[in-house]
Amino acid sequence: MSDARKYFNLPSPFAMKRGGALNGAHVAYETWGKLNAARDNAVLILTGLSPSAHAAANADDPSPGWWEGMLGPGKAIDTERWFVVCMNSLGSDKGSTCPASVNPATGEPYRLTFPDLSLEDVANAAKTLVASLGIDQLACLIGCSMGGMSALAYMVLHPRSVRAHISVDTAPQAQPFAIAIRSLQREAIRLDPHWNGGQYDDHHYPDTGMSIARKLGVITYRSAMEWNGRFARIRLDADQREEQPFGFEFQVESYLEGHAQRFVRTFDPNSYLYLSRASDWFDIAEYGNGSVMGGLKRIHLAQALVIGVSTDILFPLEQQEQIADGLKAAGANVQFVALDSPQGHDAFLVDIENYSRAIGGFLATL
Amino acid sequence: MSDARKYFNLPSPFAMKRGGALNGAHVAYETWGKLNAARDNAVLILTGLSPSAHAAANADDPSPGWWEGMLGPGKAIDTERWFVVCMNSLGSDKGSTCPASVNPATGEPYRLTFPDLSLEDVANAAKTLVASLGIDQLACLIGCSMGGMSALAYMVLHPRSVRAHISVDTAPQAQPFAIAIRSLQREAIRLDPHWNGGQYDDHHYPDTGMSIARKLGVITYRSAMEWNGRFARIRLDADQREEQPFGFEFQVESYLEGHAQRFVRTFDPNSYLYLSRASDWFDIAEYGNGSVMGGLKRIHLAQALVIGVSTDILFPLEQQEQIADGLKAAGANVQFVALDSPQGHDAFLVDIENYSRAIGGFLATL
Repeated sequence: MSDARKYFNLPSPFAMKRGGALNGAHVAYETWGKLNAARDNAVLILTGLSPSAHAAANADDPSPGWWEGMLGPGKAIDTERWFVVCMNSLGSDKGSTCPASVNPATGEPYRLTFPDLSLEDVANAAKTLVASLGIDQLACLIGCSMGGMSALAYMVLHPRSVRAHISVDTAPQAQPFAIAIRSLQREAIRLDPHWNGGQYDDHHYPDTGMSIARKLGVITYRSAMEWNGRFARIRLDADQREEQPFGFEFQVESYLEGHAQRFVRTFDPNSYLYLSRASDWFDIAEYGNGSVMGGLKRIHLAQALVIGVSTDILFPLEQQEQIADGLKAAGANVQFVALDSPQGHDAFLVDIENYSRAIGGFLATL
Repeated sequence: MSDARKYFNLPSPFAMKRGGALNGAHVAYETWGKLNAARDNAVLILTGLSPSAHAAANADDPSPGWWEGMLGPGKAIDTERWFVVCMNSLGSDKGSTCPASVNPATGEPYRLTFPDLSLEDVANAAKTLVASLGIDQLACLIGCSMGGMSALAYMVLHPRSVRAHISVDTAPQAQPFAIAIRSLQREAIRLDPHWNGGQYDDHHYPDTGMSIARKLGVITYRSAMEWNGRFARIRLDADQREEQPFGFEFQVESYLEGHAQRFVRTFDPNSYLYLSRASDWFDIAEYGNGSVMGGLKRIHLAQALVIGVSTDILFPLEQQEQIADGLKAAGANVQFVALDSPQGHDAFLVDIENYSRAIGGFLATL
């Protein structure tokens, strides 16, 4: 697989919201389609916690991306019309500067000396990247899951930087249920002796903590309804079962294990901790004197599409409705789409048919 | 606190459903009120995974019990009318024989040599206890959470042993979401190096695994809705925060930590693993040729009350409705109560007002 990533060097020092600054930092991004002469057909995608910038296949990297069904010529996000940019979040280890990166001041990885990361920092890095591409105003800013919060930060911090917005399965602030889940994920990593205060290496690595964190993630990203149909109470074949006491016996256990094994060594644990905490910290109400509606009302858009799914337990539908109401109150023409997809929070990655219809339909009106 | 527990010696050997047998085993129980001359006013309560037999204060132990608001003179389960028995489940470490108990054959604790435990074994131990008290037929069998599944086992295995039944926040079989949660709880314990294949002691104890398991339990026992009102995004005071990296910052994190600390050393980890797995294994469909309705139809009752709560993510309301439908199809006069209590699965322990009204009202009709 060739590396399709482009890298953008952030200005140095790059000041962080909660204090401190990064020097010599960069973000990874990929692009699809062409920026037109008027530079007014740009769409930026901000991602969830774990995806890379490789949202879909492109000339440099034909491997399928994490939103392959959504993005491409003739697809909902039509790359024949739009110049699409997807950025790997600052602090994520999929190419952007993150806690696993080398601190140029010391020649050693940052680890826990990485400054506090907030989604506002992710947003500011994205805004700087967009400006570097010669784009003053995005035609559309799309944010999925954590990226939806980064997108709200982008818009509230940079007035008039976005004409239209698509908010996908996200929230205007973390609620206590989501905080509890993420706190427990972080704790599973922190309590793994191999995490060692962030000083792990390939030989002493917090596999256990990362595995528990990922499984808890997958449980909350999907839905009970989907699993009733998909796994029911089906047992593993005898040869698939674990020999050890209390080992896996049901298909759903093996499914979670597969997800964990694919994740554990492919995502830097410290980066995970930083991004997870940034999600807990984000609160649009900070921009509205403590009021979510007040914060949202400071975002001025022409049009917005807000999509959520009734089976999402991590970013519940009521929170999407709050976003829709707030953007509407601020004067945007807002379309609110509540889907019944059974796949829970991850529906935007799985129920491509319904999400495509909503997103493609909305983009066609721009 | 005086020990109000009574102990009943199970017949030896006590055969277990999945093979093996216990010798010299016993169950702990407590009682309230008096058995009448006709011996037809007995109510048995089967509990969730962690409670003891001490459901409420009594003469021997005036300390409040886990269902104190529900049980007592003049309360919903009126101990002036009913002779109430609450049994600590076989396999639980609150007085009954469990994996932490000494195996008389070896003089050592069973630990993982304890035979496979199923809720049918819990039910059979309960039936033997009830018979020993001179009770042929229970006036009412009440089962809460895991105890509701034990109660279904009791009734399907012992026809005509129960006249009326109250099913509280339970399920006719474990669904994959609940299995996934419990599997992850067990895994957190199993992966704790101090669990050590069940060979822990007070100096090397799986505190971390038990803490994660308990927190995950509490997250799934309550509801996002309750926490929005209760914790919102309230921060801990500076002096309550943890000094360590990624330490607790929000009140909801401290709440979970408090729950974990109260639990970790008060419940035997191996017993937890056995009871947790028994909950995953239970499936009334085993008694109905693979059909839940078929299994439920084999339970013959005069009357039943089935209660569930819309905010329960572990034992969703649809599963209560299934129980109600099945018992109705089998000929019982069934009352189905769907509550909107915000407290989730634990509502039966917290929303005493609404549960009292339903349970007290039902018992008054018997």
